[in-house]
Amino acid sequence: MHDVTTADRSHDRRPAARRFIDLRAPEIGERITERSILVQPLGAIEQHGPHLPLSTDSLVATAVAEAAVAEVGDELDVWLLPTLEYTKSNEHAWSPGTIWLSATTLLAVLDDIGRCVATTAAKRFVFLNGHGGNSALANVACRELRLHHGLMTFLAHPGMPADQGGSSPAGELGMGIHGGTDETSILLHLAPELVRMDLAERRVPDKIAENRYVRFGGRVSFGWLSNDFNEDGYIGDPTPATAERGEELFEGAVQGFAEALREIAAFEYGR
Amino acid sequence: MHDVTTADRSHDRRPAARRFIDLRAPEIGERITERSILVQPLGAIEQHGPHLPLSTDSLVATAVAEAAVAEVGDELDVWLLPTLEYTKSNEHAWSPGTIWLSATTLLAVLDDIGRCVATTAAKRFVFLNGHGGNSALANVACRELRLHHGLMTFLAHPGMPADQGGSSPAGELGMGIHGGTDETSILLHLAPELVRMDLAERRVPDKIAENRYVRFGGRVSFGWLSNDFNEDGYIGDPTPATAERGEELFEGAVQGFAEALREIAAFEYGR
Amino acid sequence: MHDVTTADRSHDRRPAARRFIDLRAPEIGERITERSILVQPLGAIEQHGPHLPLSTDSLVATAVAEAAVAEVGDELDVWLLPTLEYTKSNEHAWSPGTIWLSATTLLAVLDDIGRCVATTAAKRFVFLNGHGGNSALANVACRELRLHHGLMTFLAHPGMPADQGGSSPAGELGMGIHGGTDETSILLHLAPELVRMDLAERRVPDKIAENRYVRFGGRVSFGWLSNDFNEDGYIGDPTPATAERGEELFEGAVQGFAEALREIAAFEYGR
Amino acid sequence: MHDVTTADRSHDRRPAARRFIDLRAPEIGERITERSILVQPLGAIEQHGPHLPLSTDSLVATAVAEAAVAEVGDELDVWLLPTLEYTKSNEHAWSPGTIWLSATTLLAVLDDIGRCVATTAAKRFVFLNGHGGNSALANVACRELRLHHGLMTFLAHPGMPADQGGSSPAGELGMGIHGGTDETSILLHLAPELVRMDLAERRVPDKIAENRYVRFGGRVSFGWLSNDFNEDGYIGDPTPATAERGEELFEGAVQGFAEALREIAAFEYGR
Amino acid sequence: MHDVTTADRSHDRRPAARRFIDLRAPEIGERITERSILVQPLGAIEQHGPHLPLSTDSLVATAVAEAAVAEVGDELDVWLLPTLEYTKSNEHAWSPGTIWLSATTLLAVLDDIGRCVATTAAKRFVFLNGHGGNSALANVACRELRLHHGLMTFLAHPGMPADQGGSSPAGELGMGIHGGTDETSILLHLAPELVRMDLAERRVPDKIAENRYVRFGGRVSFGWLSNDFNEDGYIGDPTPATAERGEELFEGAVQGFAEALREIAAFEYGR
Amino acid sequence: MHDVTTADRSHDRRPAARRFIDLRAPEIGERITERSILVQPLGAIEQHGPHLPLSTDSLVATAVAEAAVAEVGDELDVWLLPTLEYTKSNEHAWSPGTIWLSATTLLAVLDDIGRCVATTAAKRFVFLNGHGGNSALANVACRELRLHHGLMTFLAHPGMPADQGGSSPAGELGMGIHGGTDETSILLHLAPELVRMDLAERRVPDKIAENRYVRFGGRVSFGWLSNDFNEDGYIGDPTPATAERGEELFEGAVQGFAEALREIAAFEYGR
Repeated sequence: MHDVTTADRSHDRRPAARRFIDLRAPEIGERITERSILVQPLGAIEQHGPHLPLSTDSLVATAVAEAAVAEVGDELDVWLLPTLEYTKSNEHAWSPGTIWLSATTLLAVLDDIGRCVATTAAKRFVFLNGHGGNSALANVACRELRLHHGLMTFLAHPGMPADQGGSSPAGELGMGIHGGTDETSILLHLAPELVRMDLAERRVPDKIAENRYVRFGGRVSFGWLSNDFNEDGYIGDPTPATAERGEELFEGAVQGFAEALREIAAFEYGR
Repeated sequence: MHDVTTADRSHDRRPAARRFIDLRAPEIGERITERSILVQPLGAIEQHGPHLPLSTDSLVATAVAEAAVAEVGDELDVWLLPTLEYTKSNEHAWSPGTIWLSATTLLAVLDDIGRCVATTAAKRFVFLNGHGGNSALANVACRELRLHHGLMTFLAHPGMPADQGGSSPAGELGMGIHGGTDETSILLHLAPELVRMDLAERRVPDKIAENRYVRFGGRVSFGWLSNDFNEDGYIGDPTPATAERGEELFEGAVQGFAEALREIAAFEYGR
Repeated sequence: MHDVTTADRSHDRRPAARRFIDLRAPEIGERITERSILVQPLGAIEQHGPHLPLSTDSLVATAVAEAAVAEVGDELDVWLLPTLEYTKSNEHAWSPGTIWLSATTLLAVLDDIGRCVATTAAKRFVFLNGHGGNSALANVACRELRLHHGLMTFLAHPGMPADQGGSSPAGELGMGIHGGTDETSILLHLAPELVRMDLAERRVPDKIAENRYVRFGGRVSFGWLSNDFNEDGYIGDPTPATAERGEELFEGAVQGFAEALREIAAFEYGR
Repeated sequence: MHDVTTADRSHDRRPAARRFIDLRAPEIGERITERSILVQPLGAIEQHGPHLPLSTDSLVATAVAEAAVAEVGDELDVWLLPTLEYTKSNEHAWSPGTIWLSATTLLAVLDDIGRCVATTAAKRFVFLNGHGGNSALANVACRELRLHHGLMTFLAHPGMPADQGGSSPAGELGMGIHGGTDETSILLHLAPELVRMDLAERRVPDKIAENRYVRFGGRVSFGWLSNDFNEDGYIGDPTPATAERGEELFEGAVQGFAEALREIAAFEYGR
Repeated sequence: MHDVTTADRSHDRRPAARRFIDLRAPEIGERITERSILVQPLGAIEQHGPHLPLSTDSLVATAVAEAAVAEVGDELDVWLLPTLEYTKSNEHAWSPGTIWLSATTLLAVLDDIGRCVATTAAKRFVFLNGHGGNSALANVACRELRLHHGLMTFLAHPGMPADQGGSSPAGELGMGIHGGTDETSILLHLAPELVRMDLAERRVPDKIAENRYVRFGGRVSFGWLSNDFNEDGYIGDPTPATAERGEELFEGAVQGFAEALREIAAFEYGR
Repeated sequence: MHDVTTADRSHDRRPAARRFIDLRAPEIGERITERSILVQPLGAIEQHGPHLPLSTDSLVATAVAEAAVAEVGDELDVWLLPTLEYTKSNEHAWSPGTIWLSATTLLAVLDDIGRCVATTAAKRFVFLNGHGGNSALANVACRELRLHHGLMTFLAHPGMPADQGGSSPAGELGMGIHGGTDETSILLHLAPELVRMDLAERRVPDKIAENRYVRFGGRVSFGWLSNDFNEDGYIGDPTPATAERGEELFEGAVQGFAEALREIAAFEYGR
């Protein structure tokens, strides 16, 4: 049996530099300023097919956030919040082990967090969202937090989800949205001991790609559950995944987020 | 003073063919079948600058829905629901006259509607959303309704919002997202008596266009209120708008939605 | 088959004069004053037996509101809001096609609307409620909006429901509360193409009329669902309905509401 | 100083016959049958002017319920629940000492109670409501409980509120709705030691009586707070109140409720 | 058949001195001062086995509160609120006749009450909680009310529940938490006519007492329903109960609460 | 300046054995059985005075949970869930940097988690709660989850809070409830680089210890905010804290929780 207990994933578990929660109370007043940027990673605990762990999205969001903050944190005064592990994974509600908050619960959680961030001097608050199923609600929250708490809010992704404008390898016909080539590659890079490539198969709903409007990333979006397409619950083709591709994607994601943080630091609405 | 009371907008007020709500109760059991498609337009009542009426989004969503249903309704068995006039316009909360539902209220409304649609034989339920500020929440609702009520749910737009993958004229630098060239043109076509071109000016936050990530439609989205950019609350350049362009855009939207309905009618998840 | 698609109901679809939502944002500050009265029609989409359409209550509320505003709108500075089509029709939850909001959802909707109305200069806010099943909740909302938002709130009806102090023809024993003589008559006047008199029968729960306390409009009210009385879900006798009676009732309702608006315009609590 | 501590109000504090809550658990299965009627008095704790106690509505509802159950309880198998003391008195929110639940809280409370009543064999559930400000919400609840829990629900009042179809002495012009002649009389009968007639004055908003539509009990209802009319917060004329009149009203209320219970016991919807 | 209707429980139904709700509105401003203490008894209506009435917890909380206020009310300016009869008894949801509010409903009720208490001059607000199942939620509420409404809040019990640090006779192995020796004794003292000793048996889950951590009052608490242990739903041994023991316990509870009120009157946080 | 960024806390960041979230979906069905125990640590991000980090409670709960699971996880089939970092810290709402969920939000979160756990075969669900301010709500949740989802639920603490039956050094008079000797000692053991002993002072509200009833852990609990006692917001005496004492306490907590897990594994209600 594959054994998760002896795994060594120290690379994604190193104490992050600039952890907000390791500050002591008086330091909040001293070190968090109007210039500070707070980054809130959004993970997910949800089925990712037979080949990837439930923690996939959390692992990626956390690792990208930590690496990007390590790179530009001092320069831009970025502070890292602890990853929110349980988020909105109701498209996987059918799969035991998925742990998810309802839309209204998660919206309340995000609003509560925003209320608290607004008690500090920081103005810029960034969600780094590792789970495509959160994007819509996080977008709603970005506006809520701006209106309710006056924060400047931002929503970034380690990699743009394929159904939200991101790319996906040709073999997936643009549909590698959950457990596909890219996500599997990144896991092979970050936590190979948690990946079972021997169980990975191609799971691409080819017929949908023929549509002009109603397809992933098309002009008409649609509500789906991950078992609508196949009983294994993943959508994409993990079989070509490699750790090398994963490393490349990961480094690209880190650089992309670091650059995005630079823009966020300088962002003004323009009024 | 510009007088709205004598306006004749009969073109968007003709009795729509295939109005669901004009059925009588026993007809629901007879005429609504598993093949039927129900279309729920989402409007908005919100400030649109000094040149466009509060009803802009409702007008457009209703007109496109009616025209598309007139075109393909009989062929595809599409039924039109009454436009939801009050939706989530909290980015315009600052502007008196904007009438908006909170995110949780609107989510409850959409879920209640879905619960009721699911009592009919229809399986396909389509939001035609005229207000970009609703897109994220409507996407959340699409999944909620699929999970809660078993509906196949779809989200379409008259025209894809410029901050959500849609296009925008070059003069707007991709930022004609509210009251700009295209929206104003369509209103000049649909309801010219409600448009005040003499008050229209260019309101483009040019600086944002320089960003690579944090811009409308960029990989990093951000929370904004419509008075973050300028005190007039519109974003785009209405000055080049013409009724001719509007007619072209409108007809394109109608055709696009009609074609999308064809895909929706045939859509299967592929399992 | 009865064909709803070619119906011409232009009389109830004329562009209403003084539509609030056709104002442009700066006009809200100019034209809406402390003297202005805002009218919010409340419709319903619910089964009305085999002879009347789901939209019956919406049709009536909208038509009465439009006609009354046409009559006294300029004199009293009345502005019409778009009819709320989906309201609280849970007594018809059993009947597919009924589209209803839960009590808590509708209360939230009405409170959200009141919050927005209170951002304008208007002080007087009137519900014109076409559906008796909304009256109790709308009364609750009237007080909520007065306390929460400082509005002067009013609740009027096109015709007083027979179970709330209104009259009903003798043949109905005071129980023409849903799809009976009067409502059917008004529909025959307003939208005869939507009425199926050939399917109309007498559906009066005669036994209840013998009660002194527990009857419609009696001193003891009771919770009921529309299928408690008969499986067709209407209560009253539509068979004597005529368009002439409907016209008379409609004109009476319009005049009554117009006069009520005059009182509302002059109303002071008297402190 | 008027001393409430030595008051003897034993007449309204006698152990009620047929108290549901004094049953032991196994008795619920034995003694509560499909024939049983459960009565839930609704009181209120709210300012009643300078002359009446906060507990006025609770006192009256409890006394009428107890007396009526004493009279017909055995005959009709009626069981008394404890008076709900805190209800919806938000029209008196301005007056310290008023203790009230919000509309949504009270609706949740009533729904929770209904859920529990439905675990017994009883089918008939009656609110005896001593506070006019509860009537609308209790009516909403009657339908909710019928739909959610299958109960037959009823709403009765000790005396019909003057703004809901009840009568009021001529001197009050039909406006003795809070602390007026009748309510004060009943208190003089039930708890004279709690009444301060020396502080009672006429507080009638005469001007409202001139209205045809917008008046208490008129066809147009309106949202009001009790300090909208005068700073003392009562509406009516307590000065002609007497204990004799109170006794007569009280006995009438008891007889009326007893007779209503007989109708409730025999009530069928008629299907 | 045991007859509850002729029972005489006048000792717990005497008009309490210092009843807050018998004040008239202007007296709130005169008699309630910053020094005043308001006591809110929390009862419960829930199964208590075959030998005790549903009202057990309400009876005890009310009697202790009334007696303690009679003793120290004048000295400490204590005011008694009416007992909240329906609270959180969801551990008895399985037993018909139990009437309970959900956790969120009760939390809303307590917050609403706190909001109202805070409109008076009183600063000290005390829950006297007769039902152990309320303790956790009441503790949550104590903090909520302090934060939301600025009140000094306190939670006391007639007798400390055996699973919350209180004692229990040896024969119950510390597990007399519901319907056991002590509670039955107090009822024999307060309302002997409601007790059926002939139906009382020992119901002690002896095995749990062997645990070091996971037991009632142990360092590890656990979620339980009252039918988890036995089908009769009580936990303890009522058989040794006597009225004498009950009187002693009752007087101890009264004295204890009276002394606690003295400390509450003098309590300062110490800043 | 004290530098948190270079801190090495690898001892509390080692990949935990038996991490539930590192399982892959099919493993949930294979490895999680009716015998499995799931442990959900509850942390907190809240001010802990000038000497301890915001993350104190999270650090301790996580470290104790990981160590105990490492010890008895294989034997008892225990699985570790990721620590919930944001919980109910509203007593520290006044202190910027504290990140807390409202009571209703957290209750919804815990209920959502329980709903998901109940989709697996596991029956035993344990909160290991590092923050005393969560205890009451977690106790409420234990019952909710038992009733709603059928789980056997347990609530344990790394160390029993001093206001909930736990001990506290004599110098603190039993009041070392937040940032005192013991908590500071454990942090000196687990994460010395995050502790500033030079800023630690004695903050004990001595006067409260004189009370018999109203004191921490007394029979009367009270609602408090952490700035009620002093402006630094901690309660206890951290000055005698040592890493040695911390190690001893930590090892005791780990052993205690491991033993508790053994009891939990064998626990039956006893029916």
